[in-house]
Amino acid sequence: MNNVLMGIAKAGIKESGKEDLLVIKLPFACEAHFVFTTNHFAAAPVIYSKNMLEASGNRVSAMVINSGNANCGTGIEGYEHAKMMGEKVAELFDIPKEEVLVFSTGIIGKPLPIINVLEGIEYAVNHLEVLDLEMAAKAISTTDRFPKYAFCKKDNYEAFCFGKGAGMIHPNMATMLAFCFTNSKLMPRKHFDDILEKTFNSIDVDGCQSTNDSFGVISYGDLDYSDDVYNCVYKVCKEVSDMIVKDGEGATKIITIEVKHASIKTKAKVIANAIATSNLVKTAMFGADPNWGRILAAAGSTIFPIDPLKVSLHIMGVKVYDRAPIHFNKEKLSQKMRESQDIEIVLDLKEGKEHFSYRFSDLGYEYIKINAEYTT
Amino acid sequence: MNNVLMGIAKAGIKESGKEDLLVIKLPFACEAHFVFTTNHFAAAPVIYSKNMLEASGNRVSAMVINSGNANCGTGIEGYEHAKMMGEKVAELFDIPKEEVLVFSTGIIGKPLPIINVLEGIEYAVNHLEVLDLEMAAKAISTTDRFPKYAFCKKDNYEAFCFGKGAGMIHPNMATMLAFCFTNSKLMPRKHFDDILEKTFNSIDVDGCQSTNDSFGVISYGDLDYSDDVYNCVYKVCKEVSDMIVKDGEGATKIITIEVKHASIKTKAKVIANAIATSNLVKTAMFGADPNWGRILAAAGSTIFPIDPLKVSLHIMGVKVYDRAPIHFNKEKLSQKMRESQDIEIVLDLKEGKEHFSYRFSDLGYEYIKINAEYTT
Repeated sequence: MNNVLMGIAKAGIKESGKEDLLVIKLPFACEAHFVFTTNHFAAAPVIYSKNMLEASGNRVSAMVINSGNANCGTGIEGYEHAKMMGEKVAELFDIPKEEVLVFSTGIIGKPLPIINVLEGIEYAVNHLEVLDLEMAAKAISTTDRFPKYAFCKKDNYEAFCFGKGAGMIHPNMATMLAFCFTNSKLMPRKHFDDILEKTFNSIDVDGCQSTNDSFGVISYGDLDYSDDVYNCVYKVCKEVSDMIVKDGEGATKIITIEVKHASIKTKAKVIANAIATSNLVKTAMFGADPNWGRILAAAGSTIFPIDPLKVSLHIMGVKVYDRAPIHFNKEKLSQKMRESQDIEIVLDLKEGKEHFSYRFSDLGYEYIKINAEYTT
Repeated sequence: MNNVLMGIAKAGIKESGKEDLLVIKLPFACEAHFVFTTNHFAAAPVIYSKNMLEASGNRVSAMVINSGNANCGTGIEGYEHAKMMGEKVAELFDIPKEEVLVFSTGIIGKPLPIINVLEGIEYAVNHLEVLDLEMAAKAISTTDRFPKYAFCKKDNYEAFCFGKGAGMIHPNMATMLAFCFTNSKLMPRKHFDDILEKTFNSIDVDGCQSTNDSFGVISYGDLDYSDDVYNCVYKVCKEVSDMIVKDGEGATKIITIEVKHASIKTKAKVIANAIATSNLVKTAMFGADPNWGRILAAAGSTIFPIDPLKVSLHIMGVKVYDRAPIHFNKEKLSQKMRESQDIEIVLDLKEGKEHFSYRFSDLGYEYIKINAEYTT
């Protein structure tokens, strides 16, 4: 971890005057896997960073991240700004510009105050220190209520991750960013994809896809890759992704939906996703209501058949449906749901061997308040 | 219209003691087109009615509809109850059971009080009168705030429609039902599908698919089919579907999103649907916020590419984005949105000749209240 350096600056993008610029300096051109939002209205830095990764063969020497402004919907000027940020960092570190990635998060549709940003970059580069996960997470935060980071060590291996996100909000378009580092050789791409699926790609706050989402795993060491590394990376990614759900705008509950015994994994995931993004399920969870009808209606809404005469459903360990409605103590279960921040739902399809879990937040008044009232 | 009879009863399904059973008697075995929910957790009456339509070759002599209980998630017993309802009507009218359709709407997961329902059917059949659209709409209502019906006459042709729906809520699972009648020969199926697409299939309240949705057009006369009939049917279906959006749980606005100049119609519809179901767009509308970033982010979230450097966006006639952010008076537009119940959004893709419109409601505190607090 001592090999990864950071520089932080106050570039005046955030109205609060807090830290809003982070530069990360890696010890050399590190191999990395990255994924970005699939939104066609992707922000300029996303398009720019994709181009750089392609040009460098997925090698990264430095990253620059600003918060408070997403540099999205900013037309051709936005791309120029992303390019100026990346090239400034490359020039100051004297490294190829292709090895510098650029990320932005915050409000959509406003041009970056690029002069300030470039000055901030200069300041950050001149004040490098060893990466501090908490400080780094804070520097890229927007409306996050707490910094999000995790660390894992197993013998000589280490993996750490920091990220930000709390849903999508305006004027602070809080999109998800997360960066994970390991001191082992880079994991195979399929393991990276696997971890992504189980962590950042299986969480939901409001069903709305962001324009700046980015996630990467960067290898800065050459210890042999092993199961331990996989487990460490999975662990820190899971922790940070769970923190994002927990910070979900106005969230009062974290709900885990596990779809069990599906014939194929995609089916399990699609059904879990349909339940996790249903407003009726989310509001029921907010109301501590064991409303199994809404859960099954959401499960039945995908292209994959489910057979109501076959499935069973548990909420917090209590069986509430088994091929037909069954008697359960609704008041008692509701009380249990009200008292707990974590709610577990298990839907058993009873048809195969595959399963998938999704974590999501509930939907309450606070979400409406944040997203309707507190706009400018 | 005098040829279509109805009978109404209070079968004691609704706790309020209001009318909750409707029997419709057609003058003969009428040709009809029907569509039903695609939810795999479809209610028993949906499955039963599909079977009857297949057996009768899409001919309908009578319908029985109960409100207050959706007969959904009720296992094999539920199907038996739907069958008992249909067969009772067939027996009393002395018609083939295959020509009787059954519909239910209301709470999920509770068995129908079938003895009461059968008694109600007997009462309704013994008290037939000429169809009164308002009374029929009221008898099938659950949480609807107002009855939904429309009538259209052009020379000798007439078309009328009644329906119900206000989103999906528990304990009164208010799913959409709508029935349209014409005294002309039955329209071609492709015209029926076309009208369905433009009306009941292009509205959204909460993005949640119901388990009992049913819509049909029934022909009870033999006047020649013509453009006038098409226009009349479209008109009444449009009016009733708009009423459902207007009644959307806690809705304060009806928003129309028109996606213009798409290369193919499916693309226009999928993008319009993505905008209409976005919680971030819905909450922005509730807050009277001309938040074009959220609209474009939703538009960019589908599989269809949109090019931010090409599209333009208008809100209530005001251009807010045109290949890049443009200056507009945000305060003034926000004021206009605040004062109007109807908001129009036009997204111009500038790539082809196809367009599609969607109507949807906003998302505010009342929705949360109805769906979280007011559960049992």
